[in-house]
Amino acid sequence: MPLDLDRYRIAPGVPVRLGERATDDDGGLTEDEAEDQLDDNIDRARDLQEALYAEREQSVLFVFQAMDAGGKDSTTESVFGPMNPQGVRVASFKAPTEEELRHDFLWRVHKKAPEKGMIRVFNRSHYEDVLIVRVHGWAEADVIERRYEHIRNFEALLADAGTRVVKVMLNISKDYQLERFRRRLRRPDKHWKFNPGDLDERKLWDDYMDAFEVAIEQTSTEDAPWYVVPAETRWYRDLVVSEILLDTLESIDPQYPEPDFDPDEYPPDSIS
Amino acid sequence: MPLDLDRYRIAPGVPVRLGERATDDDGGLTEDEAEDQLDDNIDRARDLQEALYAEREQSVLFVFQAMDAGGKDSTTESVFGPMNPQGVRVASFKAPTEEELRHDFLWRVHKKAPEKGMIRVFNRSHYEDVLIVRVHGWAEADVIERRYEHIRNFEALLADAGTRVVKVMLNISKDYQLERFRRRLRRPDKHWKFNPGDLDERKLWDDYMDAFEVAIEQTSTEDAPWYVVPAETRWYRDLVVSEILLDTLESIDPQYPEPDFDPDEYPPDSIS
Repeated sequence: MPLDLDRYRIAPGVPVRLGERATDDDGGLTEDEAEDQLDDNIDRARDLQEALYAEREQSVLFVFQAMDAGGKDSTTESVFGPMNPQGVRVASFKAPTEEELRHDFLWRVHKKAPEKGMIRVFNRSHYEDVLIVRVHGWAEADVIERRYEHIRNFEALLADAGTRVVKVMLNISKDYQLERFRRRLRRPDKHWKFNPGDLDERKLWDDYMDAFEVAIEQTSTEDAPWYVVPAETRWYRDLVVSEILLDTLESIDPQYPEPDFDPDEYPPDSIS
Repeated sequence: MPLDLDRYRIAPGVPVRLGERATDDDGGLTEDEAEDQLDDNIDRARDLQEALYAEREQSVLFVFQAMDAGGKDSTTESVFGPMNPQGVRVASFKAPTEEELRHDFLWRVHKKAPEKGMIRVFNRSHYEDVLIVRVHGWAEADVIERRYEHIRNFEALLADAGTRVVKVMLNISKDYQLERFRRRLRRPDKHWKFNPGDLDERKLWDDYMDAFEVAIEQTSTEDAPWYVVPAETRWYRDLVVSEILLDTLESIDPQYPEPDFDPDEYPPDSIS
């Protein structure tokens, strides 16, 4: 029974109120049920991925954005880890390098756009340039305003070249983040994931929510939709994201290409 | 006495009739006068280029398009050769590679966008995707139509990031091209420049003129203007292009940055 993804997809032009959206949900499923469905989704997505790879006409770009501890890394691992690694590439975007800053903000992400046949996952993305940059006022308001338009134009360019762009915000509450930070500090094997600077960003939580709302409203389009996924129950989060992946691959319907030889001329038993 | 560049600049939204535009012009100058002015322009452009390089806030993208034998290579050499090579990079775009074809048509050119402080020269460009591709019908009409918009959006993105985009069509007549082809065939040292396939393209001359007219009309904007330069008198062509370069650099007015130390604290005679 497929999930109703419309609950999480942001229709174009519709205001987004993150405070009214679930951060914790289980879809009425048990963990076992969800894991069975996840396995099933991944099997079907793998088959479609093979067709996508063979077809070499289309591609998929999956963008993850979230607050710290939102689960970008672990969702990527759960959903895209089981795919054929030859057809999936992950790009993580950190603070821009000096060279990157000497170009427009889309320069570094355009280089990583997926080639035909591939699935590309962005762990953070060009959206940082309208999220953290907006929250900290690192660019003027009118510059940020133009960026929404540049992002829409850029994603339309990709869409015209056969790339299906899907953007996922992993939605967590401020309390949940605190719980995850505390867990990281309690467990020495998780200390590497903690950065004292994360606590400064946490103080700007409300500003981040505002920035997310505007960014999602301004850039959720028919061709490049945003999904806001409740991310606190990790097995349900993974299930929803796998469902989005499957739905995306089904909607672009990749087809194995016709062979460029006539199979009738090569009866299998006749070749040697 | 500066040239009147408005004669060659294509104002936004104005229809272009290449047949009514000069291919041969000397601006009423002698060759000696033109060469003096060229030297003067290059000296001034070099000074501005140094400021651009020191400032590291803006950049220039100079796009050359022309029919075969239009003089893209030799204009690049005459005008950009005397610049400081550390601040100028030329990118030539040939038939796209297989990897390039697996991405949108702007992917390969975006990678070559100039970083702040630099002048980038494109010898051919993304405009091939609405010129040769249109003439040969290698893409559907509606795909080409969308490309004009993608080009405008892309060049606006660069403009917003501080890149001044200038596009130059080196305009020659069909008779002049024939003369140049014959010269290439008569001189063994020029044979390497001749390609029998060029004669096939030559047969499509009128289609190319149509494609140029539409492309220029659709993409000449305030921020990224087109110039149609008469290119048969080579010394005048070089002078006009040097004037466009100088005008471009003057309009963006690069400034040497403030030193990040206080010069008063370092009297030159006191250091050791």
